[in-house]
Amino acid sequence: MTPVRVACCQVHIAVGDTDGNRVRVRHAVEAAAAVGARIIVVPELANSGYVFTDAAEARSLAEPVDGPTVTGWTELARRLDAVLIGGFCELDPDGHVRNSAVVVDAGGVRALYRKAHLWDREKLVFTPGDAAPPVVDTVHGRIALMICYDLEFPEWIRLAALRGTQLLCAPVNWPELPRPAGERPSEIVRVQAAAATNRMFIAVADRTGSERRVGWVGGTMIVDPDGWPIGGLDLGREVTVVADLDLDTARDKRISEHNDVHADRRPELYGGNLD
Amino acid sequence: MTPVRVACCQVHIAVGDTDGNRVRVRHAVEAAAAVGARIIVVPELANSGYVFTDAAEARSLAEPVDGPTVTGWTELARRLDAVLIGGFCELDPDGHVRNSAVVVDAGGVRALYRKAHLWDREKLVFTPGDAAPPVVDTVHGRIALMICYDLEFPEWIRLAALRGTQLLCAPVNWPELPRPAGERPSEIVRVQAAAATNRMFIAVADRTGSERRVGWVGGTMIVDPDGWPIGGLDLGREVTVVADLDLDTARDKRISEHNDVHADRRPELYGGNLD
Repeated sequence: MTPVRVACCQVHIAVGDTDGNRVRVRHAVEAAAAVGARIIVVPELANSGYVFTDAAEARSLAEPVDGPTVTGWTELARRLDAVLIGGFCELDPDGHVRNSAVVVDAGGVRALYRKAHLWDREKLVFTPGDAAPPVVDTVHGRIALMICYDLEFPEWIRLAALRGTQLLCAPVNWPELPRPAGERPSEIVRVQAAAATNRMFIAVADRTGSERRVGWVGGTMIVDPDGWPIGGLDLGREVTVVADLDLDTARDKRISEHNDVHADRRPELYGGNLD
Repeated sequence: MTPVRVACCQVHIAVGDTDGNRVRVRHAVEAAAAVGARIIVVPELANSGYVFTDAAEARSLAEPVDGPTVTGWTELARRLDAVLIGGFCELDPDGHVRNSAVVVDAGGVRALYRKAHLWDREKLVFTPGDAAPPVVDTVHGRIALMICYDLEFPEWIRLAALRGTQLLCAPVNWPELPRPAGERPSEIVRVQAAAATNRMFIAVADRTGSERRVGWVGGTMIVDPDGWPIGGLDLGREVTVVADLDLDTARDKRISEHNDVHADRRPELYGGNLD
């Protein structure tokens, strides 16, 4: 298979400015497609922003999956012949507010995912999802989807990986935390480890700048199946990270003459003890 | 609890020289104890070396757990009042050759572990273990034990972590592989991620130099519950890495006002899908 160009857009999002956010995201996606990207990832909660004053503010910004944000992305994906992955603040059919994300392509919404592991005050705002991370066959390969703190649960990543994920796409909003000089943000270290542990690509779209005194890591990046960053790690600028990926290489889980990172698992020894 | 001094000894081991290896390991352990270390980790297969010509050579170097290596370690642990963790080439009671490791203290052998995930040609040499990584209560805190490639299976690390491990000790022989300039060895990235994911300390004793054309990473290190290296990463010298650890900090799994890395797991969503 020929390589596919993947782009992760570190877009500026402003809390509460849903119209402005939709425009900025659209411009970033169009610019990525213009340089040949066919899989494009944008951040978590890209319609609403992240640092809500309270649950009521989040609810006031939430919209259904057939609302303007995802409808706009579907039109964009069709017009640009792209697979688009992004996060949005969802009002679900039962009236729950969700931290959700979608995979859309020329065929429409291919997957809707609701974040299952909620970070900090998100627990006061969102109802967590109860479904496994979706794994979607696209024209470019098999893509999985999860959101931010989900990435810190190796079990969640395994679920997606064992279903044949070649590229895991993750909209995130990584808050900046102290770290020792010379060290990468811990979230990045974990993504590198997750990619290598499962020999798959991971594409992350983060935020940059700050919002209501929360600074963002600006950690947008693309990591290869060895766990090496092949795009990104500028840490902070408003930037689109682009890389050409041969996703078929992620089908091969061998790492030595006698090792395969998935076949070497011993699930008969894990199962009963993980609860 | 007062901090405990932990040492990881990157000892030179020579394949086939069991007598010489026992002496070198003893000297390294005595030197570590002399600077106050009370938990001391030495490498994988510290009696035999690693790069066997064939299974017969490994068998010729293997010894039972009551053989000279572990008996010597038990005497050393008693004399130095230390907890000693090390790997050895074992001939088990059924005649199988094992890549094993022990935790010994003044009370004798506290745990015997047989590597469950075998690396490359180890599969031609060793019988894999079928038991979970041991978790041992010592006078200094709760210590778990696994060996080298075991560390690359997040399920295995979770098993130990969920049983309350404060310090995971890992004898390893990390073979040197190519990596991009400026990148840490992938094994180190994964250990950092494993520590942070579970908020526990990890102490690794690796090899240095080379053996029959296999070079070693020399990645001996100690990582804290945030995943930051607090000792080691000199990468290569024959060295003992020392750090004073307050192991009780690893009991606290909270990472924000509303998050706890273990309580935030959703095992009801993981279980049936991990096989």
